[in-house]
Amino acid sequence: MTTTLDATTLDATTLDATTLDADRIWTTELAQHTGERVRLAGWLHRLRRLSHVTFLLLRDGKGVAQIVIEDPALIELLAALHHESVLLVEGHVAVEPQASGGVELRAPAITVVAPASERPPLDLYKPDLKAQLPTILDVAPLALRHPRRRAIFRLSDASLAGFRATLRAMDFVEIQTPKIVAAATESGANIFAIDYFDRQAYLAQSPQQYKQMMVGVFERVFEVGPVFRAEPHDTPRHLNEYVSFDVEVSFIADHTTVMALLTRVLRGMVEAIAAEAVGAVALLDLTLPVVPASIPVIHFADAQGLIMRETGEDVRGEPDLAPAHERLLGEWARCAHGSDFLFVTGYPMVKRPFYTYPDPERPEYSYSFDLLFRGLELVTGGQRLHRYDDYVSALAARGLDPAPFAGYLQAFKYGMPPHGGFAIGLERWVARLVEAANIRETTLFPRDLHRLTP
Amino acid sequence: MTTTLDATTLDATTLDATTLDADRIWTTELAQHTGERVRLAGWLHRLRRLSHVTFLLLRDGKGVAQIVIEDPALIELLAALHHESVLLVEGHVAVEPQASGGVELRAPAITVVAPASERPPLDLYKPDLKAQLPTILDVAPLALRHPRRRAIFRLSDASLAGFRATLRAMDFVEIQTPKIVAAATESGANIFAIDYFDRQAYLAQSPQQYKQMMVGVFERVFEVGPVFRAEPHDTPRHLNEYVSFDVEVSFIADHTTVMALLTRVLRGMVEAIAAEAVGAVALLDLTLPVVPASIPVIHFADAQGLIMRETGEDVRGEPDLAPAHERLLGEWARCAHGSDFLFVTGYPMVKRPFYTYPDPERPEYSYSFDLLFRGLELVTGGQRLHRYDDYVSALAARGLDPAPFAGYLQAFKYGMPPHGGFAIGLERWVARLVEAANIRETTLFPRDLHRLTP
Repeated sequence: MTTTLDATTLDATTLDATTLDADRIWTTELAQHTGERVRLAGWLHRLRRLSHVTFLLLRDGKGVAQIVIEDPALIELLAALHHESVLLVEGHVAVEPQASGGVELRAPAITVVAPASERPPLDLYKPDLKAQLPTILDVAPLALRHPRRRAIFRLSDASLAGFRATLRAMDFVEIQTPKIVAAATESGANIFAIDYFDRQAYLAQSPQQYKQMMVGVFERVFEVGPVFRAEPHDTPRHLNEYVSFDVEVSFIADHTTVMALLTRVLRGMVEAIAAEAVGAVALLDLTLPVVPASIPVIHFADAQGLIMRETGEDVRGEPDLAPAHERLLGEWARCAHGSDFLFVTGYPMVKRPFYTYPDPERPEYSYSFDLLFRGLELVTGGQRLHRYDDYVSALAARGLDPAPFAGYLQAFKYGMPPHGGFAIGLERWVARLVEAANIRETTLFPRDLHRLTP
Repeated sequence: MTTTLDATTLDATTLDATTLDADRIWTTELAQHTGERVRLAGWLHRLRRLSHVTFLLLRDGKGVAQIVIEDPALIELLAALHHESVLLVEGHVAVEPQASGGVELRAPAITVVAPASERPPLDLYKPDLKAQLPTILDVAPLALRHPRRRAIFRLSDASLAGFRATLRAMDFVEIQTPKIVAAATESGANIFAIDYFDRQAYLAQSPQQYKQMMVGVFERVFEVGPVFRAEPHDTPRHLNEYVSFDVEVSFIADHTTVMALLTRVLRGMVEAIAAEAVGAVALLDLTLPVVPASIPVIHFADAQGLIMRETGEDVRGEPDLAPAHERLLGEWARCAHGSDFLFVTGYPMVKRPFYTYPDPERPEYSYSFDLLFRGLELVTGGQRLHRYDDYVSALAARGLDPAPFAGYLQAFKYGMPPHGGFAIGLERWVARLVEAANIRETTLFPRDLHRLTP
């Protein structure tokens, strides 16, 4: 082989661990560089021309810095640019108690990296976006730059980090399972059909069957991925594609082991938000929930008794809880137990999927649960059947053809331990945290009955 | 509100950080408990009845333990069970140099948790699965329990952990973008159509447009998620759904900043495998690649020159490299530079997507790159256009209608910094690591032209 050809090489070690451009700092780091000359990069967030001074507000991926502009030529240059133009700014960091963060940049040299082509249709510098949600979603690439919009997705990111870190510390393995499936995994309704070469396939409604198969392999698994629901409902609570945090765990005593695990996972998520999304929590003025070591638990039958006593409505015989009754239970958890969270266990078998484990003492009730967060269902979970014969009986009892389940049933034919799991909807979690009026506010690019773009 | 109802509570703190059942240990932890009585849980991997002694091999989520059975009644009980039956085993940990790991369990008490219903069609205790790949994939829930199959997915899991940890340490934000899209994101070919309520939608071929829009928001983003390619090719290299590790970063100098970032990410992945998948690396007898601080770089035009000199074939004018030529370049990188990796930069613009940034000095070449790993393309990346006018021109030059790109183009209209990124195919990465003959070996539940189950 020849070695005469020059191979120019590239030294990866020139990349600093926290910044790609070692000479540039984040706006949020300014206070650590008082008295120094530094370089910032970002977007023209606002130009405030006051009578005696002009301020440039520069927004980067993390925050906003104030830059004092005194040179009249520079003021003219900036005034000619649209908001959102991209700039590099070098200047001197000075203490200024009136500036947010207590520092500002002075005597700047500015390079225009990329001028915005048009005036943005939204004013990102205002404390809130003054537009209706559909408008905001139509211009998502712009609207997501607003500090309050960004803060919401910092919460999503930190939640994800906390979820993963908690599970990895307990030896859970992260899996990726197929989103294209041959048949409905949960029920035949609400499933999107795909043209798959010469036949029809579907989009997975959940990784349920796959995560169960995988506890036979690794015992403890989790997945973070999209799930698809073809529900034709146009409400503030529905998305047709959302992100599901799925967990499945084996060698459990019963559903209470799963509930204990979920409690720990929620704690990890809240702790990660408190640690990693400090700025977002402050900007959104959030009160983070406290996840108690022991979340209160009420059985479905007792919950119905409580509802009757409180409202006079006889709900016995109803197989599920109405949203108003979930709110009532949420209130009760708060008042009687000082908890934002409440486990409701033992939902009737008739309303739960075929793989649900029945309560051996009261087989009309299940070993499943919902977790209510501030009076709204956030998580569904429970113990699953694990014996092959029980699956055969359960499918037959519901009149379901076992053929489409053949692959899944193999797992149970060849030995499966008692197991269970749960699924948390990421957007629903964040929506409850920030008390969003519409779940679309917590989705980068929502998909619904009417929306497929951007 | 009443408080008379008893809410039984559950104490999450009873969960040990590493085990859900605090009294149970993993088989891989046996040696730390010599002389103690411990509890194991797992699957009947094998029963070896020798003339003077019987060994039960018990497999759990992490490894396999040897258990000495002397009680004839217990031997009979176990002999009556199919392999893969689920057991709890309590016994005394004793040093035994002949056992794998140097310890074994003696004087066991065994509980049968769930007997297997049928004899498994594969022998999981043999060093290799003796079956053709289609058979192995047909019984995936069973076959994935084989230690060598599991080891492959331990590599995937560790790669993922290393990828994420490296990027998070550099302030990258993890995003989830929609998989249901209104139009092709890369090209009109090879896209799956979905029935989306009253209209047609598609499955995303990549998160390309979304990750670019999001660098306008957070500057540095990554996503781990499924991508879908309707390529009707039945080869050992093709999957119709795979997992893509996508990264996009802004305020770059040019494509070399992206290459330096990729180098660092690959290092993080290899380091995570070495740290977290020790058992899998040993079992598969892998030699992990060394990611040099400086991966050698060759320009596409120089690569063609090298191919000409080495093979005599005049490939100038070809817009891409043939697989045989990639292998030749891989050999050259190994011999001339001692590297498993090679960057090829400057691929001709005609073969790259419209958003590719051209080389300002030689505009027929691009600021894009491929990373070859052991002579095969593993990663594609590069700098992207960032000016709105350049997008309008690039779409026009290729005769593409700008209308489907309207949402995406907003990002560039309102100011975007120079940026670039790359995508690593998880299965392809692991397949090259383990030198798999077929990429399906590195996919839990592959989707191809013919396979949709399990």
